[in-house]
Amino acid sequence: MSSSDHAFMARALELARKGLYSTHPNPRVGCVIVRDGKVVGEGWHAKAGEPHAEVHALRQAGDKARGATAYVTLEPCSHHGRTPPCADALIAAGITRVVAAMQDPNPEVAGRGLLRLMNAGISVQGGLLEAEARALNAGFIKRMESGLPLVRVKLAMSLDGRTAMASGESQWITGPAARAAVQRLRARSSVVLSGADTLLADGARLTVRPDELGLGAELTALAQARPPLRVLIDGRLRVPLSAPFFQAGPALVATCAAATSRCRYLDDGHELLAMPGSNGHVDLRKLLLELASRGANEVLVEAGPKLAGAFARLGLVDEYQLFVAPKFLGSSARPLLDLPLAKMAEAPALKIVDMRAVGDDWRIIAVPDRAS
Amino acid sequence: MSSSDHAFMARALELARKGLYSTHPNPRVGCVIVRDGKVVGEGWHAKAGEPHAEVHALRQAGDKARGATAYVTLEPCSHHGRTPPCADALIAAGITRVVAAMQDPNPEVAGRGLLRLMNAGISVQGGLLEAEARALNAGFIKRMESGLPLVRVKLAMSLDGRTAMASGESQWITGPAARAAVQRLRARSSVVLSGADTLLADGARLTVRPDELGLGAELTALAQARPPLRVLIDGRLRVPLSAPFFQAGPALVATCAAATSRCRYLDDGHELLAMPGSNGHVDLRKLLLELASRGANEVLVEAGPKLAGAFARLGLVDEYQLFVAPKFLGSSARPLLDLPLAKMAEAPALKIVDMRAVGDDWRIIAVPDRAS
Repeated sequence: MSSSDHAFMARALELARKGLYSTHPNPRVGCVIVRDGKVVGEGWHAKAGEPHAEVHALRQAGDKARGATAYVTLEPCSHHGRTPPCADALIAAGITRVVAAMQDPNPEVAGRGLLRLMNAGISVQGGLLEAEARALNAGFIKRMESGLPLVRVKLAMSLDGRTAMASGESQWITGPAARAAVQRLRARSSVVLSGADTLLADGARLTVRPDELGLGAELTALAQARPPLRVLIDGRLRVPLSAPFFQAGPALVATCAAATSRCRYLDDGHELLAMPGSNGHVDLRKLLLELASRGANEVLVEAGPKLAGAFARLGLVDEYQLFVAPKFLGSSARPLLDLPLAKMAEAPALKIVDMRAVGDDWRIIAVPDRAS
Repeated sequence: MSSSDHAFMARALELARKGLYSTHPNPRVGCVIVRDGKVVGEGWHAKAGEPHAEVHALRQAGDKARGATAYVTLEPCSHHGRTPPCADALIAAGITRVVAAMQDPNPEVAGRGLLRLMNAGISVQGGLLEAEARALNAGFIKRMESGLPLVRVKLAMSLDGRTAMASGESQWITGPAARAAVQRLRARSSVVLSGADTLLADGARLTVRPDELGLGAELTALAQARPPLRVLIDGRLRVPLSAPFFQAGPALVATCAAATSRCRYLDDGHELLAMPGSNGHVDLRKLLLELASRGANEVLVEAGPKLAGAFARLGLVDEYQLFVAPKFLGSSARPLLDLPLAKMAEAPALKIVDMRAVGDDWRIIAVPDRAS
């Protein structure tokens, strides 16, 4: 493939990224249509139920799509969903070459869209900027491949790895830029999940606050139109329905024994799910499977050391985002994760994939090092 | 000043940096002599007692120094030390313009060298790349300005801010690249300082291991020729003279009550200093003043959470270098600093000035944020 192929796919990815906050449960997809070296149509998927990227791009291209090349960040769909198959639309428009960054991750449909195009005489190429395309939809891909969502644990800590003073005093460890970054993490997630300890301690709502996103008007509006589902893990139903979390809108509560309280939550517009585990706590894995079955691609865990530590111990975490405030909270302060280990050999190995300044704070992204 | 001035001073700084591991107690200094836009002489100071940068550069320039410009990273000296004053040498060689990155930081001599040059009819300019020049000799400058050395605390921790398992198991949290970086930190320091707990726990020698420095032959040889003084803080003289630390060469021990043991240490080639503080511990501030009076520019503290925490509590730390291993050691593991704080307001504010990958580990450099 040529360097111009590369540039057009990079543009398609840029378009796809506009859907970061709004396409879930769908993937983020971008499309660029090029004829005689010139872009004649661009499109991106904004929201489930609305046209796919290819349809927007074809509309913009009009007659110029005939004989053109389409660059798509994901294999065009071949099935009738809420919209007709994009593969058919590309064929009908007279596109003669399709370059896709990656195949559909759903093993049951992967390749079918591309095959359909090939069978219609269209020249098809795949794998251009595939790593970037996969990174953009890592949650969607994980859900398609494994039935589990991508789990991202956000933690805010001091430079000495502490989250709060022993007294619980903790608010605003990190500064406004880090808080805006966390707002954007919430907005891109299908689910924001927390535990009873956290909600009882600081009265968190876990909502997306549009004015703190630091995004333009268009993306802010899209993010607002598609807010994440707020999920509370509350094994013993300790958080009262009068808590700010419940007052802020409908939520899902996972608990150990639900039966008798179900209607009380329903009456207030919330859903109660019984997910008892064998250890007296909510079965986190089962909950994640349930969330994925409802279309959750990315789950953001914003919890205290106990719940975050439980996800870590169960090996359910795909990514840690650590916001590091430049201060020492000292050795009496609360630990990052409730993860009592005795031997070095038990210490989970990670790979730090990114470290960068976010205002006066720093953000470290680490992923479990499954190789070691 | 012109962009070529900038380039020549940058080169002088590059030369000065070659003295990183060997000039102490002297500052690192570089000099470039330029005539008609061409470099005719270069020099850098390698070791106390040996010629200063200017002398090397003038020797290389020979007759070409007449009418030339000298770029020096530090104001040329005007006093007779172990070598004659460089200001006189520049005058004698016929230099007609001197550009200095910074004045001598010693308030009692600052400006005298430049004045001497001016009085000899030489055109003098100062302050070019001053920030870089000051950073290179931050320890020397601090000692000259305050009578205290620069104190750098090196800590190795896991991503969750732990240094060792509860059992004490700790060796090799970080990988070989981080260990080489620590070796270079030792080599550039005038003093490497540790505490009894650390030496008793892991039998550390705190020596510079030439083969682990990762430097070229010339700089390695210089580093070996000027090893740091190893200082042990051992209030109750718990570390036996048979410990690897003492077997590795002469050392200085700071303790609370020395009198009766003095000769025993002296016989083995070590020095014992009584530095009792009011709290039953060694008076760290007094010790630092003593080390500075002996010419220590940079002190590297490689200690456990107690001693490192004590330096932090006393506000004696100028820089933290945190080597972060990509793993979680968990909440039972040992803390980074023994620094029991009750309220957020007591938490020392820092400024993270650098974060970068060092092999599979990361290094964070943070300095106290005196402004806040």
